[in-house]
Amino acid sequence: MDERRLSTRPTMRDVADRVGLSIKSVSRVLNGDPGVSEAKAEHVLTVARELGFRRNDLARSLRLQDRTETIGVVVRQASTRFYDSLIRGIDEVAARHGALVLTATTQSAEREQSAVLALSSRRVDGLIIVPSGEDQSYLRAEAAARMPMVFVDRPARGISADTVVADNVAGGYAATQHLIARGHQRIGVIGTRSSASTMSERARGYRDACREAGLASEDLVRWNAHGQEGAQQACEELLGLAHPPTALFALNNVCTIGAVRALQGAQLSRQVALIGFDDFDTADLLNPPVTVITQDVEEMGRRAAEAIFSRIDGRPTTSRREKTVLPTTLIARGSGEIEPDRPVARRIGA
Amino acid sequence: MDERRLSTRPTMRDVADRVGLSIKSVSRVLNGDPGVSEAKAEHVLTVARELGFRRNDLARSLRLQDRTETIGVVVRQASTRFYDSLIRGIDEVAARHGALVLTATTQSAEREQSAVLALSSRRVDGLIIVPSGEDQSYLRAEAAARMPMVFVDRPARGISADTVVADNVAGGYAATQHLIARGHQRIGVIGTRSSASTMSERARGYRDACREAGLASEDLVRWNAHGQEGAQQACEELLGLAHPPTALFALNNVCTIGAVRALQGAQLSRQVALIGFDDFDTADLLNPPVTVITQDVEEMGRRAAEAIFSRIDGRPTTSRREKTVLPTTLIARGSGEIEPDRPVARRIGA
Repeated sequence: MDERRLSTRPTMRDVADRVGLSIKSVSRVLNGDPGVSEAKAEHVLTVARELGFRRNDLARSLRLQDRTETIGVVVRQASTRFYDSLIRGIDEVAARHGALVLTATTQSAEREQSAVLALSSRRVDGLIIVPSGEDQSYLRAEAAARMPMVFVDRPARGISADTVVADNVAGGYAATQHLIARGHQRIGVIGTRSSASTMSERARGYRDACREAGLASEDLVRWNAHGQEGAQQACEELLGLAHPPTALFALNNVCTIGAVRALQGAQLSRQVALIGFDDFDTADLLNPPVTVITQDVEEMGRRAAEAIFSRIDGRPTTSRREKTVLPTTLIARGSGEIEPDRPVARRIGA
Repeated sequence: MDERRLSTRPTMRDVADRVGLSIKSVSRVLNGDPGVSEAKAEHVLTVARELGFRRNDLARSLRLQDRTETIGVVVRQASTRFYDSLIRGIDEVAARHGALVLTATTQSAEREQSAVLALSSRRVDGLIIVPSGEDQSYLRAEAAARMPMVFVDRPARGISADTVVADNVAGGYAATQHLIARGHQRIGVIGTRSSASTMSERARGYRDACREAGLASEDLVRWNAHGQEGAQQACEELLGLAHPPTALFALNNVCTIGAVRALQGAQLSRQVALIGFDDFDTADLLNPPVTVITQDVEEMGRRAAEAIFSRIDGRPTTSRREKTVLPTTLIARGSGEIEPDRPVARRIGA
């Protein structure tokens, strides 16, 4: 044993070296698993105690010999397709590493902390978190113990950690500019929580584009449009204004579907343009097909998982936290290319 | 300590009684959590060893004092909305019981076993499983140890356990009869795996209805239509037959969206009716709106979670296994009410 090792907390390897057994046997004894004789087990426990070994030393448990080959994911239960795609991306990378993915869903931001801590106490090698609460400082102990952690979709607050996000500001800017370029001067926005960084950044991109074009914008932004119904109502309210918007920008796909519902139900003499943030399965099948800003959520999941495994595999956890920002893409399908004051098409026989 | 207790394996309570500490403190020490002084922790560990306490005794961990307030869910990662709704139902009931839901997703039927066993070794109070593998006899040890388990969507094979399923045969029958009542005599079917009981039961309902009406059916069933693209191709093949079907029955919502894609893309002179099994977000927004057979997946999740908690709360695990069969409902929206040989509507200005 060299000096360096003696100066740190003892590991299973230290115990194994001292007793002359494999790490596997030592691990068995310390985890209470069978397969090691009583006498040897006794010796292992005595030596472990002498060395000051602590079974659940969090930092230690992250070392190779104690890997559980499991990563934990915490997401807020939501009805968007976001989580499906995210988990698919994470699963793909985890499968390549032979690791299992355990997901804790939370019903509310308030339950995020208990879900995260419950997972971290269940022997996971790393954590991927889509934060919904306002403050993640409850993870300071894990951060100090160098538990690999990556935050996805939104950065953590209160601790510093690796982050994988989409370029929400650029996406919001691109959507708005696309509409302005087609002549729109009154663009309505429908979003959920202005406190979520995803939402506020998309709205920031919208405001930047409006300001650059010299357009007033603030009176056409509607927050707290929750669920399809909330979004539909917010759109109906916008469309009922004395000077209604000629285009709508929906800040996530639930809002977008609500907006489609409002547009199909309304008795409009003029078509209203629509761009949604985030793609969805049937966007190209609707009439008109829905123009969207896509973020590659599967890729976000892959990047997050790769960051976790690279930390697990020894990338120094003291190194600078990395922030990965993935680009967004505009897919023009029809609804976002409608110009102001285009009359509504009439159908025969439909 | 009474005789009965001495005759069984030692529990955390035995250790707590002997050292004069609370079960909570003993649990902390044995789980390596902080909050107990070094000296006391040492004493707990010594006594636990003397008593022959084994941390990983599965049966023991199911006793009340060791509840983890966590239930495990194993699902196969899929792109249907099924899992979203299922987990929402489970979460709702779990939240009422103050319990956390941990979900392991598997990429393939082959990985089901390792996911289930990894979860069950991570201290959960019960397991809800959507089986994708062909055989669940790997859970015999857990069943023998009376781990509460519920199978959802499909029954377990190789062990006996509580089950919550939809009435797939009745749903398939209702869809087919609905089409036959509108005059269809050639009804195509698109499904994924004929080995999955959900799929084969829906197809059985279809065959029953066809047989009752004196219709030939077998040549119009297409299996192995995987993903939207596979379903689209299978539909295109059916529509290209010399005597094509006048109606389609898609056996899940991914197949349905693929069918919509095929119908929108095809140059048809006659409209083709469509009914899909399982509802989806935008079904009513498509043109024509899609008629579906719905199953209440959230309710399946709630029932499964309630069954788990009733087992945890003491319903004898030796009592007869219960099978809950939930009804399905047909929602007529337009696509399923198209009669044979209705000409395709022409649009102006669209």
